[in-house]
Amino acid sequence: MPHVPTSPAEIPLALFAVFVGARLMRELLERLGQPGIAGEILAGVLIGPHVLGWIRPEGVPPVLAELGVMFLLFRIGLEVKPAAMLSLGRTACSVAVCGVALSFASAFAIARVWGHASLEALFVGAAIASTSVAVSAEVLASKGYISTRAGRTILAAAVIDDILGLIVLALVSNYARGGVNWLDLAGTAGLAAGFTLFVAVWGHRAVGHAVPRLQAQMRAVEAQFTLSMGLLFGLAVLAVWAGVAAIIGAFLAGMALSETVDERLHTMTAGVSELLVPFFLVGIGMSLDPGVFRDPSTMGLAAVLLAAAVLAKLLGCGLGASGLGRADAMRVAAGMVPRGEVGMVVAGLGKKMGLVSDPIFGIIVFLSVATALVAPPLIRRAFDTKSGVTEEG
Amino acid sequence: MPHVPTSPAEIPLALFAVFVGARLMRELLERLGQPGIAGEILAGVLIGPHVLGWIRPEGVPPVLAELGVMFLLFRIGLEVKPAAMLSLGRTACSVAVCGVALSFASAFAIARVWGHASLEALFVGAAIASTSVAVSAEVLASKGYISTRAGRTILAAAVIDDILGLIVLALVSNYARGGVNWLDLAGTAGLAAGFTLFVAVWGHRAVGHAVPRLQAQMRAVEAQFTLSMGLLFGLAVLAVWAGVAAIIGAFLAGMALSETVDERLHTMTAGVSELLVPFFLVGIGMSLDPGVFRDPSTMGLAAVLLAAAVLAKLLGCGLGASGLGRADAMRVAAGMVPRGEVGMVVAGLGKKMGLVSDPIFGIIVFLSVATALVAPPLIRRAFDTKSGVTEEG
Repeated sequence: MPHVPTSPAEIPLALFAVFVGARLMRELLERLGQPGIAGEILAGVLIGPHVLGWIRPEGVPPVLAELGVMFLLFRIGLEVKPAAMLSLGRTACSVAVCGVALSFASAFAIARVWGHASLEALFVGAAIASTSVAVSAEVLASKGYISTRAGRTILAAAVIDDILGLIVLALVSNYARGGVNWLDLAGTAGLAAGFTLFVAVWGHRAVGHAVPRLQAQMRAVEAQFTLSMGLLFGLAVLAVWAGVAAIIGAFLAGMALSETVDERLHTMTAGVSELLVPFFLVGIGMSLDPGVFRDPSTMGLAAVLLAAAVLAKLLGCGLGASGLGRADAMRVAAGMVPRGEVGMVVAGLGKKMGLVSDPIFGIIVFLSVATALVAPPLIRRAFDTKSGVTEEG
Repeated sequence: MPHVPTSPAEIPLALFAVFVGARLMRELLERLGQPGIAGEILAGVLIGPHVLGWIRPEGVPPVLAELGVMFLLFRIGLEVKPAAMLSLGRTACSVAVCGVALSFASAFAIARVWGHASLEALFVGAAIASTSVAVSAEVLASKGYISTRAGRTILAAAVIDDILGLIVLALVSNYARGGVNWLDLAGTAGLAAGFTLFVAVWGHRAVGHAVPRLQAQMRAVEAQFTLSMGLLFGLAVLAVWAGVAAIIGAFLAGMALSETVDERLHTMTAGVSELLVPFFLVGIGMSLDPGVFRDPSTMGLAAVLLAAAVLAKLLGCGLGASGLGRADAMRVAAGMVPRGEVGMVVAGLGKKMGLVSDPIFGIIVFLSVATALVAPPLIRRAFDTKSGVTEEG
């Protein structure tokens, strides 16, 4: 092996602490009637560097979290038929646009009112604008809501959100650097949207044509798994090059394979995702530093921004989804609440450019964790209401 | 997420290159009638830093290789019933002791003849002494030979080899530091052997008692997977603390679970291992630096040591297994040929103590790669001979 670690027990110990800690907290929260995902994030807050300090963040390799969330989205893609997803395209677009616009505007306004410079306020808006699909996807998958009309709308809108988030970030950072090159921006947005649409529309046909033929010709065992992983990693790379997140590529790969692969691939994928998703959720929790909130003004701003972040998506996305009827609109709105790693990337960039201060950075991390904790009970409540979950439509 | 990588495509790209490169080379070698595992190791040599240089070793997080080999051994443990393994204990002991003794003695003698200092020669002997179970296990598993009498003997002997390797390393490094504390050494050896025997003998009973009860009480989904992973990581940590490798703990965890878990757990485990084992094999290949062999004397020593390393195990282990009859003794002997990460750990320690020179370090890495490439065809030939594979015994 290329690397001999200083303490040979460190990696097994970190694996044990993260995995077992996350699963114990999941079990505890489920027994309390709460969503298990909140337990796994809270496990990260607890064992992370700022509370108990059992685990150094460097001791948990980030690649496990990245692989975990890629497999989470890949697995969810496997459950979604492209046609069922594309039929909801128009609704999903209006959900995404309304939610992003209202989140961006309200967060910008609040940060300005709190006395922050307009450039910093722009970064706050950009960081809070787009939904992070992973958390909602986990809740939907664990409750079997993925294939409902509301579930599919959430997924489609979250994918569009990722593209909108890219555009907003490009706008803000270009503006901060002194000028927006509209041609460049159109190119960036066009590439991202074009890649996503192209794979969503044509991917499953290409896969349905190629995978069975290749599989029949391959000598090595587990050929279907090998081909699926090749597609997953390949589309993740292309997605990043096209400007969207690797997990969008993973989701598109799953969707493209959804009509071709067999039960064994589903179970093998479940193995990887059950093993590694806790590392993603614990990683979210570990990044929270409660020390930021010693200053009352910071704490106040965080509380107001959290309320705005939740309400903006509930109202904006609910409005965007109103064509689906009141019950489904509420479900979609709840599913769009979580923010996540996109916000942290935006905040990290702003910090690097010297435009985002440490307290604001801490607030954005807090908002990722807090919306991830607030959303699952909202989603469960919205989906569990009597008015009946629409199975197909 | 706690970590924002500099280039967001780097991790997906490394995942793609390693996984797809390994699987392409596996397919190629299998089409040429060679073992696929050799293809995956050669993929590492090719794309690694010393030949094509496509992948920086730092770009492939070592945790993926470590997890991969842990799951490989865990998965193999799941196929082995403890009683069937323990019944071969005496034969496995003589296989392990003869193979280690002959390997150590011959490598030490050759290094002395080549003019190296006796301390350095001791490290060469220690590095080459013990078999690395992962490579043989992969070949046995991929061909369905795990549950044969020879297959189980190889696994048991390789586990004992790990303990013998620990003792040899402690002896050599104590001696190099100026004196052997026999009491300490006995304690170290006793702890390692005691832990291994204890888990092998009692583990499956404790698991058979506890897992179904816990599983019935757990609310969260995939309870059996959660419990199995907890046991896997827990025993890996304890194994390291007891002085043996984490993969021995993983193997013992699998064996303890072998009579309790269902088919879904096997398939989920297969998913993780199929995904991550290529990272282990590519990692072995990437560590080879052909540049070491520009010096003809180094090259000569490497060639002689390789021949000795292969012959010492074939003769020593064949002799140790002679009670199983000629055909099975040859199978066992072939399965004991691969060396691996144990040798690299020993060589790394010797280098750190200033007792192992760069060329000798390079030779030991070469021997790990070369024995891993030489062994699979030997194993396949030995197991494919007409005299009939004993299914149970």
